[in-house]
Amino acid sequence: MAELIEISDPDDPRLADYRDLRDVELRKNLEAEHGLFLAEGEKVVRRAVAAGFRPRSLLMAPRWVEGLGDVLATTGAPCFVVSEPMAEQVTGFHVHRGALASLERRPLPVLEDVLAGARSILVVEDVVDHTNVGAIFRSGAAFGFDAVLLSPRCADPLYRRSIKVGMGAVFTMPWTRLPDWYGAMPLLSELGFTTVALTLAADSTPIEAAVSGVERVALVLGSEGHGLSPRWEQAADRRATIPMHEGIDSLNVAAATAVACYVAARR
Amino acid sequence: MAELIEISDPDDPRLADYRDLRDVELRKNLEAEHGLFLAEGEKVVRRAVAAGFRPRSLLMAPRWVEGLGDVLATTGAPCFVVSEPMAEQVTGFHVHRGALASLERRPLPVLEDVLAGARSILVVEDVVDHTNVGAIFRSGAAFGFDAVLLSPRCADPLYRRSIKVGMGAVFTMPWTRLPDWYGAMPLLSELGFTTVALTLAADSTPIEAAVSGVERVALVLGSEGHGLSPRWEQAADRRATIPMHEGIDSLNVAAATAVACYVAARR
Repeated sequence: MAELIEISDPDDPRLADYRDLRDVELRKNLEAEHGLFLAEGEKVVRRAVAAGFRPRSLLMAPRWVEGLGDVLATTGAPCFVVSEPMAEQVTGFHVHRGALASLERRPLPVLEDVLAGARSILVVEDVVDHTNVGAIFRSGAAFGFDAVLLSPRCADPLYRRSIKVGMGAVFTMPWTRLPDWYGAMPLLSELGFTTVALTLAADSTPIEAAVSGVERVALVLGSEGHGLSPRWEQAADRRATIPMHEGIDSLNVAAATAVACYVAARR
Repeated sequence: MAELIEISDPDDPRLADYRDLRDVELRKNLEAEHGLFLAEGEKVVRRAVAAGFRPRSLLMAPRWVEGLGDVLATTGAPCFVVSEPMAEQVTGFHVHRGALASLERRPLPVLEDVLAGARSILVVEDVVDHTNVGAIFRSGAAFGFDAVLLSPRCADPLYRRSIKVGMGAVFTMPWTRLPDWYGAMPLLSELGFTTVALTLAADSTPIEAAVSGVERVALVLGSEGHGLSPRWEQAADRRATIPMHEGIDSLNVAAATAVACYVAARR
C-alpha cells in the first residue's frame, strides 16, 4: 500500500520528479538521467501500473486519492498529496486529470524479442514531434499492429505528451530503438518482413496493392518535414503511396499512418 | 507594393496584431473583435494571400523580405521589418518560418453556397482542439472533399495553430458554421446528403459498407472527449464504425477522419 504523504512546501525536494513539466529540454535531461518517465491522468496512470511499470512515486490532489485506491494498493511507493494550486505551482500547469505518477523506465528490449511472432509492424524514421509519436502508437494498436521500431532520432514515446496522445498504447505495444539506422531495411527483409515505404516517389504503387497478400509487413514512415531519407526509401522492398487529390500536400504523418494501418490490417 | 517599415521599439502600437501569440484566450478575443487572423510561415502566408485574403499588415525579419517579394508586390499593406529577437519578444515565441501576416476575415458564407455542387462533405461537431480542426481540413482536402461544416462550438479553423496544422487547407476548402445545431442532420438529408455518423454505437456498420454507392455523402464526426452527441448520432441517416482491434480505445478524431475520408473517397 502506498504511503500517503501530505506536502505543503512546494520546494520540498521529494517533488523533484514533478518539476517544470512544460520545460521540454529540462525534462528530457532529468528523465534520461534518472531513468524515469511521467504518466498523467487517472486512466493513463492506471494503465502504466497495470502494464507492470514500477512507480517511484505518485502525486495528486486529495480528491483523487479515493478513485486511485486500487492503484495505490499495489505499490509501496510514496503518494504525495498536495493542494491543486500547489500541484500547478510545482508542475507549471493545471493538472486537469488529477493524478501524476513518476515511473521507472525499463531497459529497451532487443529487436529479436520485439519481433518474435510479429506479423505487422511500424518502422518510424526521425519523427520528432511527441504528439505524432503518440498518435502513431495509438493507430498501430487500434489496427492490431504487433510492434513499433523507432530510428535513433525519433522522439521519446515515454515522454508525457506522447503517452497522453497515445492513450497509453506505448505501455502495451512492444517497441524498441533500431540500433543501426543504415542497415535497418535490409535487416528487416532478412528477418522475413516485406518493408513497404510510404512515400510520394514516382515509382510507388497505391498502398492497397503494395500490401496485398503480404504475410509479414513492415510499414515504413518518414519524418514530419521531409518524409523518408533516400536511404530508407530506396532500400525498402516496396514504395507505396496513399492516393490523394491533385495539388494537395501530403497528409501529416499521423494521418498517413492511420490510413496505412487501416489498409494493411485488411490485406 | 507593401511599404517596408523598420521598427525597433517592441512597444510600437503598430505591432498590436502580433502580440502574445501563445495566449490563446487573449488572441481569441483580439482576433474576433478586430476581424483578423494570423498566418505563420512563408508558405502559409503566400497561400493565404493567393486565396484572396487581404493583409492588414505583415511582420518579418530582414532576411525573409526578399523571398516574399512576390507577395509584398501584391498588397498595399505595411510590412513591419523587425529583428529576430524582437519578433520573439513581441509574439512570445521563436518565429521559425520567418514571416507572419495579419489578414482580414471574410463574412462566413451561407450554407447553400458552401454546398452548391458538393458531393462529399465533412460535418464536425464540437471538436475544440485547434490541431484536430486543422488536421481534419487537411485530410478532407487530401481526399478531395468539397466542404466542411462546423457546429457552433467547434474551434476556429482560422486560428494560427489550425491553419498551420492544416497547411492552409482552410483557405481553399469552402466551409461555414451550421447556424442550427439541433436541426443540422435532417436539414442535410433534405438537401440530398446521406449523413453517415462515425460512432461506436452497437447498430453501426463498417464504414466501407456504409458509404458504398452513396452519391452525396456527409461524414459526421464527433468531439474529442465523448464523440457525437446522441442527437446527431441518432438523427443521422446511417451509423458507421471503423473496424478496430478488440480492447482498444477509439482512434483520435483526426486519425478517424483520415481513414473515413480515404474510404469515402473510394466509394
